[in-house]
Amino acid sequence: MNEREIIALIASLAGPAEGSGLIKGIGDDCAVVDRDGRHVWLLTLDTLIESVHFDCAFHPPEKLGRKAVSVNVSDIGAMGGKPRFALMSVGMPHGFDAAWFRAFAQGVAAACSEYGCLLIGGDTVASPQGLNFSLTLIGEADADKVVYRSGARPGDTLWVSGPLGWAAAGLELLRRGLETEDPSLSPMMEKHLNPMARAELGSRLGESGLVHAMMDLSDGLATDLAHLCAASGVAGQFLAQELPGGHLLARAARLTGNDPLQWAIGGGEDYELLAAASPEAQTDLLNLGRQCGVTLTPIGTVIAGEGVDMLRLLPDGTTATTAVAYRGYDHFRSGGQG
Amino acid sequence: MNEREIIALIASLAGPAEGSGLIKGIGDDCAVVDRDGRHVWLLTLDTLIESVHFDCAFHPPEKLGRKAVSVNVSDIGAMGGKPRFALMSVGMPHGFDAAWFRAFAQGVAAACSEYGCLLIGGDTVASPQGLNFSLTLIGEADADKVVYRSGARPGDTLWVSGPLGWAAAGLELLRRGLETEDPSLSPMMEKHLNPMARAELGSRLGESGLVHAMMDLSDGLATDLAHLCAASGVAGQFLAQELPGGHLLARAARLTGNDPLQWAIGGGEDYELLAAASPEAQTDLLNLGRQCGVTLTPIGTVIAGEGVDMLRLLPDGTTATTAVAYRGYDHFRSGGQG
Repeated sequence: MNEREIIALIASLAGPAEGSGLIKGIGDDCAVVDRDGRHVWLLTLDTLIESVHFDCAFHPPEKLGRKAVSVNVSDIGAMGGKPRFALMSVGMPHGFDAAWFRAFAQGVAAACSEYGCLLIGGDTVASPQGLNFSLTLIGEADADKVVYRSGARPGDTLWVSGPLGWAAAGLELLRRGLETEDPSLSPMMEKHLNPMARAELGSRLGESGLVHAMMDLSDGLATDLAHLCAASGVAGQFLAQELPGGHLLARAARLTGNDPLQWAIGGGEDYELLAAASPEAQTDLLNLGRQCGVTLTPIGTVIAGEGVDMLRLLPDGTTATTAVAYRGYDHFRSGGQG
Repeated sequence: MNEREIIALIASLAGPAEGSGLIKGIGDDCAVVDRDGRHVWLLTLDTLIESVHFDCAFHPPEKLGRKAVSVNVSDIGAMGGKPRFALMSVGMPHGFDAAWFRAFAQGVAAACSEYGCLLIGGDTVASPQGLNFSLTLIGEADADKVVYRSGARPGDTLWVSGPLGWAAAGLELLRRGLETEDPSLSPMMEKHLNPMARAELGSRLGESGLVHAMMDLSDGLATDLAHLCAASGVAGQFLAQELPGGHLLARAARLTGNDPLQWAIGGGEDYELLAAASPEAQTDLLNLGRQCGVTLTPIGTVIAGEGVDMLRLLPDGTTATTAVAYRGYDHFRSGGQG
């Protein structure tokens, strides 16, 4: 049973939504619930587990606290909403380090404050086998401005909000103790340790009405673009040479021996936004990105059909096409983490 | 650092609520957020950790799934609300038992359906060291009908909605393999394995306006009554002989050698409601309980002052008074679980 099968099982048991006020349940970045007819609540829940999502040997607690908030805020932004409230469940072993926890909690509080949301509750439990943290984020949006995964249309341009694969490369450098080898690579370590959610950009994109579909990149471009295309009933193709961040990926790959393209399309935890928009929106999108301090990059196109193809321009001027769907991270895939 | 200090630290970092729509943050069974001026959302998040909250050796997965929902619904009912939506995060080791998980998920779904709430989202993650499940429940109530912990007044009668200490006794019997020794004790095992939230009763009590303060009993009467009294700025006293369920506790204690009174006042996970109401409400309360199939039992009185006293009638006709505050379960208390 893999991650998709688990989610499909849970979705199949979820029960009928009629009359409940539920607008969108399992299958997008957040659940969407009617608030008052004009506004909706966006709800998401993410868990971070020690040794799976973080390694205390190199993860400073204040940055981990920030990350626990950011990965959830990212889901709110990806639907065009604004984060409002957070609940946190804290699981720690007996005899945990109080100074470590204080720094972690301060990171949570600082991130909540910076994203404009309030920590309103939660739970504390003993977790003898290691640390785990679950956060629920509640966001808000105008009902008619929510951006779903399902709105991409053939002819749309595909955009990403920043470099891909850097978090995976940064994690690999940290694991191998190579984090000080090349100071120019420090943004990669930061991308793993303290990713920033594209909160303002996501909310502004929602309000603008410029994008037809959006989601955040948490499992890698190949997997997440396949999800967006499947939800929209379309196919996608992207140009490997257009993926932003490749220059630094190549430098890191020379240190570790990894394939930089695999990082770019299969590395998880980018927490960048992936969006589909009409080609006519290009100028407005670039301007809006600039106002948010973000360089939006077009990486490909939505077409009719199904699946995701990667195109590579070869030295002889021809183009190689590879089907790449679902290459990203599955927590329960046999063979372990990619 | 104990559990109260952790919560106090988090509360101190929670940030200012002005203008946010937050009505009540950390410090009650649920956070309370304005929905539309007339209604509120109630939000709660609870985590169950393998070997702390459950033991797969004797916990059937379907009942564990139900319990994961019930312990959260209990918090919604304790504020007078109705459960509406649930999000679930599932953490499982690689190579988990798919049949086990299917039964667990079916328990979650069945409980959601029976309580009238919808499973709308969540997260699945690998958790190499063991199972953990976090659920967020979102409930709803009329803004002017929410029942807080803080409304108890001197002169109020204290009520509980069912037997105390049975879950702790049932867990002890299960741990010792004594669960088949005395068939009359099976309700105790069921109280640990599959507690039912007092959902209808809680919601009806909220709508009735009959109770001044309410909470659910999850950490044991001594601890929870101390919380309710502290939140209300009052003191409480209860009569040991009035605590319901003592007859069966005594039978179980004869098998295990435990002190039945310690189970009744210190055992956690009762998931009964504790409420304070004017003495004039007695008849109406008993009637309302009967309509919900629940025997409400008066156990003591709210008085001016602070702290919680237990009164015991002695054989010589005198009364012994013992201060009992905060004897319940603290996940991080040195010496481990009580």
